[in-house]
Formats: sequence, structure tokens, C-alpha cells
Amino acid sequence: MKKYNFSAGPAILPKSVMQEAGEAAIDFNGMGLSILEISHRSKEFTAVMDEAVSLVQELLGLNDDYEVLFLSGGASSQFFMSAMNLLNENDTAAYINTGTWSKKAIAEARKFGNINVVATSEDENFSYIPKHYEIPGDAKYVHYTSNNTIFGTQFHELPKTDLPLICDMSSDIFSRPLDSSRFGMIYAGAQKNMGPAGTTLVVIRKDMLGKVTRDIPTMLNYETHIKKGSMFNTPPAFPIFVSMLTMRWVKANGGLEGMAKHNEAKAKILYDEIDRNPSFKGVARKEDRSLMNVTFVPVDDGITADFLAACDAAGCSGVKGHRSVGGFRASIYNAMTQEGIQALVDVMKGF
Amino acid sequence: MKKYNFSAGPAILPKSVMQEAGEAAIDFNGMGLSILEISHRSKEFTAVMDEAVSLVQELLGLNDDYEVLFLSGGASSQFFMSAMNLLNENDTAAYINTGTWSKKAIAEARKFGNINVVATSEDENFSYIPKHYEIPGDAKYVHYTSNNTIFGTQFHELPKTDLPLICDMSSDIFSRPLDSSRFGMIYAGAQKNMGPAGTTLVVIRKDMLGKVTRDIPTMLNYETHIKKGSMFNTPPAFPIFVSMLTMRWVKANGGLEGMAKHNEAKAKILYDEIDRNPSFKGVARKEDRSLMNVTFVPVDDGITADFLAACDAAGCSGVKGHRSVGGFRASIYNAMTQEGIQALVDVMKGF
Repeated sequence: MKKYNFSAGPAILPKSVMQEAGEAAIDFNGMGLSILEISHRSKEFTAVMDEAVSLVQELLGLNDDYEVLFLSGGASSQFFMSAMNLLNENDTAAYINTGTWSKKAIAEARKFGNINVVATSEDENFSYIPKHYEIPGDAKYVHYTSNNTIFGTQFHELPKTDLPLICDMSSDIFSRPLDSSRFGMIYAGAQKNMGPAGTTLVVIRKDMLGKVTRDIPTMLNYETHIKKGSMFNTPPAFPIFVSMLTMRWVKANGGLEGMAKHNEAKAKILYDEIDRNPSFKGVARKEDRSLMNVTFVPVDDGITADFLAACDAAGCSGVKGHRSVGGFRASIYNAMTQEGIQALVDVMKGF
Repeated sequence: MKKYNFSAGPAILPKSVMQEAGEAAIDFNGMGLSILEISHRSKEFTAVMDEAVSLVQELLGLNDDYEVLFLSGGASSQFFMSAMNLLNENDTAAYINTGTWSKKAIAEARKFGNINVVATSEDENFSYIPKHYEIPGDAKYVHYTSNNTIFGTQFHELPKTDLPLICDMSSDIFSRPLDSSRFGMIYAGAQKNMGPAGTTLVVIRKDMLGKVTRDIPTMLNYETHIKKGSMFNTPPAFPIFVSMLTMRWVKANGGLEGMAKHNEAKAKILYDEIDRNPSFKGVARKEDRSLMNVTFVPVDDGITADFLAACDAAGCSGVKGHRSVGGFRASIYNAMTQEGIQALVDVMKGF
């Protein structure tokens, strides 16, 4: 049976990428060696790293003001590393709280500076994106989470500010075009839209750096990794390789414009069914609905188990909702096909 | 042509492991999904994590006093995390300096406590293991690097102390039996003897924890990961999976006793040729020679390029020595076969 993976992360990757990744784990580029066993200093792997960096630059339209790093430790490590590297103890940063991941980012940043939460949608269980807020003039940056995996909301416009934006883009990076010049820093755990678990993309504008006075352990200092092109220590080679393959696929499929068109069309099919079908209702406010994570609940709780069983029977896996929201969640990242969406919609039509 | 991978790390893994890893990247256990795309919370992946932890416990003979973690960030992150988690600012720890990695561990630990370097072999470019030293009575632990990848030395006996040992075992873990009860903590980047780059094994005795007063970012606190079974955030799933496969292979091939026998026999063939062949000489003192990384130099520098070309022609890759030592280095971890050693020795015999 064909499987459609609606898991929130680690998540679906293009079939061709998984095929190529599997083959390279056995024999990479006809070297007679696996990508898993070659030195990160070999010319074969440095070519992978160079291409990965260059694809990020190209897809995000980055100019020379930006550095591109592949680190490890997940977005969860960037919650504290961003503040540790960019904020002195008496500095202020503005944070927008749109859910679980924003809250964690806020809690970790508070260990390093004054964190001013300028807006939150916690009053309605994070079912919307706050749009009106005042940002203190002395803030060094504005941090937000562009897409909220758990609650199914997404910023469809950048926060209104002249300050540099810092964004946790883990769950919607490379899903739509971006004005990268507005960002002081972008970070993303790979395992949603970029690759498998195990590497974290960090894009940082150089002028954000060199302003803090604290003593930072070498491995936690962005400058360490910038100086060594993400090779200060052995990088997570295979996750970076698979991310590179995924970015190649994004580029070959129309780049970020192509992804946006494809993602809008896919999401529309699913949201249209949610709005049409009297058995279901959407969780997020319509104008803030995520094109990546579609959250919906049954009108009658009694159908939940039957619906999930019918999803399984149709090959649709990972549709169970997160416990903070309940109901259902379909994660429909770049690699999800219209065919997959249609399979899920067909199940919904039976209810 | 058959390839023999003598790379220092990322390094050779068993052929069967790379084959199985590649197949799982395409379809894991007949699920119709790749190991790269399934949720870390799925029962299929939690079974992988559980088996990985249980194999570590079994191979190292750990009792219930120890916790087993799979983290990321490499051994380089453990250089500071160990001291950050285990040492208060006024506490003292004893460190033995046997080379590049020990020095880095010392430098990072100094940010968090009083580091007393009780012994060093820097006077002879780290070509031996110091054996006589005094450890201050108030030290909380003794840190050492069990095998020195760059210089080709290895501790063949544990440091003499009643204090808990903390050991960077990145390049010889699972290569020989171990009295694990002597250790307060063991850590190892996967990419030499355990798996591919991207995960770090941390084994920690519970009574080492809970003694520091500093405020530690959540992701850097061992207790965070202990409480969540290495699943506080999305773990580096594929590197952990491949490490699990490698440990299965170690167990199936005689466990640590089997590895030791195999490693001793392999290393003997190579060291015997180094000692016999007038064109080469060994770098490390004989009694401290590493069974994992065999360092040797040409008696006449003029043969270096020819020898490396002959290695390449025979399928022996990664034999070039590290710049700190020069000459040649053959890394012969668990997965290196006697056939591979013989191929290299055959090349040496031509000189």
C-alpha cells in the first residue's frame, strides 16, 4: 500500500531524495565508499557542504552580509544560542509569543538578557497570529516563530518593524519566497522542510555579531563555526548531505516560488474540505492558517478513533493531533503531493 | 576496485551496517516509509532508541547507577558540558593532557572551574602516555582521553586513582572490555568506532549530577535529556539508528572481548611490518601504541608521495598523516578487516 506521511517532524521528504540518500549510504558517487564513512575533510564531502551553503544562499537570496552555518542541537539549541551570542545582559529583545516553541525560545533567552514579550495569542490557545503590538525602541531585535507546527498558524506577513528580525523558521523554511534582507538571523531544525533530523540551519547577518561581552564556550560561539565553514568539529555529515539533496529538489521544482504555488494549491484542497464538511472544523483563524500544518477537530468527538483508523487504512499516517490542540493535524510540507492530500480528503468525505 | 578506508573519522563502518542503513533510508522495516521521515515519537523509532540504549548498557556492562544519552554536538560539546554540569566555579578537577583533544577539553573546562593539569606528554609531542602523577585530594574527577587519534597513543591501563574517571572515548569506545564501574562519565562522538557523524554518546553516573549551582540552558543540562530519554527535542535519528546497527554488529561479533581479540591481531600485523621494514618507523612509544590509530613516518621523507600514491593504487584511502605528526596514519577501528590491513602491509613491503 502506498503511504502518505503527514507526520509533523521528522517528516516527509521527496521520494527521489530518500532514494538517492539510501544509495549514497551504500556507495557514494561510485567511490566504493559510503557517505557515512568518508572524512568530512575529503574533497567529496567538502563539495557537499559547499553546495549546501550555496543552495541556501541562492534559495533565500542572501547577499554577502550573511553567513550560512550547518550546526547541530536543533532549533532548541538556537533558543539560547541566539540570545547568548547576540544579547548582553542589559540588552532588550522583543519576542512575539505564538505558541509552544516561542515560549521555549523566550524562556531560554531570558537567561541572557531582558526579554520583552510584545504580543501573545495565548489568550485563545494560540489559534491566531497577533498583529498589533508596540516594540520598545531600544530592542536589539524582534524574535518570532514563522509557523506554529502545533497550533497550525503561520505569519503571512513579516512583523511590522524596522528592527532586525530573528526567526525560528523550522517548519516553513523554503516553503515560500522571503525578503531575507529583513532578517538579522534565521534558524531552522532540518527535520521538517529541509532534511532529516540532525542538523540545524543558521543564517546570520554579520553585523549582529561581535557585540556581546560574555565568555562563550567555543562550540556555542557562532564566530567559531563561521571561521571554519561549519567544520570546526566533525559536522553531522549525512543530515547535511540529505538537506543538500532536498534543496536541490526545491531548486529543480521551481525554487521558493514553485514551492509556494504548490503549497497554496495543496493547502486549499484540504482547507476547502474542512470548511465544506460538517463533521470537521478548523482550529486556526482563517486568515492565519498555516500552509504547512493543517489543524482541525471533529464536531463530534465520537468520530475521532474511527477517522484515525480510516486514515491508517488509506495509508495516511501521522494525522493524530498534538495533545495541546486535540483532534487532527495534517503536516503538508513541501514534499507532500497533491495525491497525498487527495487521499486524506477522500477519507474525510466518508465522514 | 575494493576500497579499504583508513580514515581517522568519519571512518569505516561494517559493510553490512552501511547496506542496512542505506536500505532503511529507502524503506524502513517494510513500513513503506524511510527511517529519515518517521516521527521520533513513533513506536518504530522509539524501539530503535530503546535498543541503542540497551546495547550500550550491555556492551559496557553498566549497572542501574548509569544513564545513557544520545546527544548531538560531538565530543567537542562535551568538553564544556561536562564541566558546566559537574563542576562548580571553585571546584577542582584533574586533567591528563595527552594531545590535541585533551588540550581542547582543558581549555573549555577552564571556563567553569579550577582545572589542574596533573600530567602531560607535550614535552615529546604527545608520543607517550604519562604514567606518574599526583592527583589533588580535593579533585572531583580525573579527565583523560583514552585514545589519541592524532598521535597514535592509547591508555592500556586506567589512570591510577580512586576518584571517578571522566573519559573522552571517542576513538576507542567498544574496542575492548572496560571496567565501567570506575567511570563517573564516558563520552564519545559516534564517528569513529560507533557510527556515522551526528550523535554523541554520553554515559553518566547519576551521583555525579545535581551538584552545581549555576543556571544552565535547558538543552545543555544532562538532567533535561535524562528525564526525556534523549527525546527532549528531536534527536539525530539516523545517526542513532546507524550507531544501533553498529552495536548490534559488535555484539554479534563477540562483543568487546571479540573486538579486542580482533583489534590486537590486526594491529600486530601492521606494527610488526613497521618494526620490520627499514623504510618506516613508528611514532608512539611501543608500550603506548594505539590499537586504533597507527602512526608511522618514513625514514626517508622522499618516499612520502610515492607511498601515498601506492596506497591509493591499492585501494587504501586516508593513510596521510595528520599535520601535527606528519608521515602516515592508518586508522584501523573495529570495522577494519585483516584483509584491509594486509592490503596496506603489502604496499609497505614494496618500500
